Amino acid sequence: MEQQEPQRNWMEHLQANALPHNAIDCVILGYQNEQLKVLLLKWKFEDLWCLPGGYIYQTENFDEAAHRILAERTGLTSIYLKQFYTFGQLERSQYYRPEQVALLKKILAQIPLEGQDWDVDWFTKRFVSTGYFALVDIEQTTAQPDFLSERCAWCSVEEVPSLLADHNKILQKALEQLRIQLNYLPVGISLLPTKFTMKDLQKLYESILGVSLQRSNFQRKILKLGMLVRHEKQMTGAAHKAPYLYSFDKEKYAALVERGIGFSF
Amino acid sequence: MEQQEPQRNWMEHLQANALPHNAIDCVILGYQNEQLKVLLLKWKFEDLWCLPGGYIYQTENFDEAAHRILAERTGLTSIYLKQFYTFGQLERSQYYRPEQVALLKKILAQIPLEGQDWDVDWFTKRFVSTGYFALVDIEQTTAQPDFLSERCAWCSVEEVPSLLADHNKILQKALEQLRIQLNYLPVGISLLPTKFTMKDLQKLYESILGVSLQRSNFQRKILKLGMLVRHEKQMTGAAHKAPYLYSFDKEKYAALVERGIGFSF
Repeated sequence: MEQQEPQRNWMEHLQANALPHNAIDCVILGYQNEQLKVLLLKWKFEDLWCLPGGYIYQTENFDEAAHRILAERTGLTSIYLKQFYTFGQLERSQYYRPEQVALLKKILAQIPLEGQDWDVDWFTKRFVSTGYFALVDIEQTTAQPDFLSERCAWCSVEEVPSLLADHNKILQKALEQLRIQLNYLPVGISLLPTKFTMKDLQKLYESILGVSLQRSNFQRKILKLGMLVRHEKQMTGAAHKAPYLYSFDKEKYAALVERGIGFSF
Repeated sequence: MEQQEPQRNWMEHLQANALPHNAIDCVILGYQNEQLKVLLLKWKFEDLWCLPGGYIYQTENFDEAAHRILAERTGLTSIYLKQFYTFGQLERSQYYRPEQVALLKKILAQIPLEGQDWDVDWFTKRFVSTGYFALVDIEQTTAQPDFLSERCAWCSVEEVPSLLADHNKILQKALEQLRIQLNYLPVGISLLPTKFTMKDLQKLYESILGVSLQRSNFQRKILKLGMLVRHEKQMTGAAHKAPYLYSFDKEKYAALVERGIGFSF
């Protein structure tokens, strides 16, 4: 697997250039097999998973930093990223539980760092973390781990293991904000493939809202919004049994997201 | 007007105890005379207005800090406060425009600080600010300025003057998030008096959403949610002309806010 090499004097560079006490963590969400999924990174050498995160340079806007961090840690570029919450609990300052600090030290000692030693104490100071979520089409996305990680994996949000530090809480907050801001985010167009069935769309809404929706009611409400284009069925023998495929009318969709889609259940 | 006295060694205390590079600003919103209003502070000696803000102690959670800062700067306690966004733009690091830095220096030089001099450079470093909004019933609220401010004033959000630094942007983001999260925030119950007319509620929604709503449609949708209690009219001669008064069923209201009120327009 391709992995980004650390630049020379990586630690020194970080200590000299990062804005103290501030960090960013990214919750990258996708949708596959009727499941909402999150992209996780596995650290090298140990069974320790985390969200991709990193630090902000003193000369960087937060939004820029989020894009750079995501690219450095996963290889993903040009994706929809939006800030959703800042985690400023005091407990984060001791958030590496002692066994996690020991585990991190063990991992880092095995990862060669050109030009300087690791400074584990630097990482365990009080950091406030600003969470960004990203919405991606999994089929169009190939994530690649960085030099700290062994691999990336898409994991159903229902089956996420115990993560580093408070990353489980960060994920839960991202899902809450996704639900609250659903009408104002380009969720459908970002997570679904270009063409999808009404059932795909309903299942996506159900995954995010955490409720079952009544089929005909959902279809009526969604069609009434006027943001979908229905495609003709292909004329094959079994086509009359196949469900209709839809796509979003990009212009109408963008206007609705701006104003609030107005879907209620 | 009563004003809180600065504690001894205020500046030294701040330098020693504040988490570097992080701040909090509060957008306190109320509703009066059919207008959405924001509480502003006027600095002493000059015509310079701002949102009440302050710094986070190293030993404090962000949410605790927001409550303390609001109490110290305005005297307000026990009010609904919720984080809405973190402002991490680089331009904030030079955000005191030169003329504002000069103005602040001039103001601070006139405010006695027991035990130490002001360190204006400390305030003009790069600070990331996390915004909190507060929703209050103006009639039940008496704000008092702190030792830095001459007075507090409720100002219609439509008529806010040019504020210190990026505080106008912070206010705009608060209003945007209020609109986006409207169905998940206790807006009606926090901003309206205990009893209100259907027109009051509609005007409040219109102020927040920035649209005109059709009266009968609004009434039908709101009543259908089952969160309002209608009160009997008082039996006076002109009572048949008076509009009905309503209040919120607190239990149903709380359950709806938790799940999402489901009002769409």
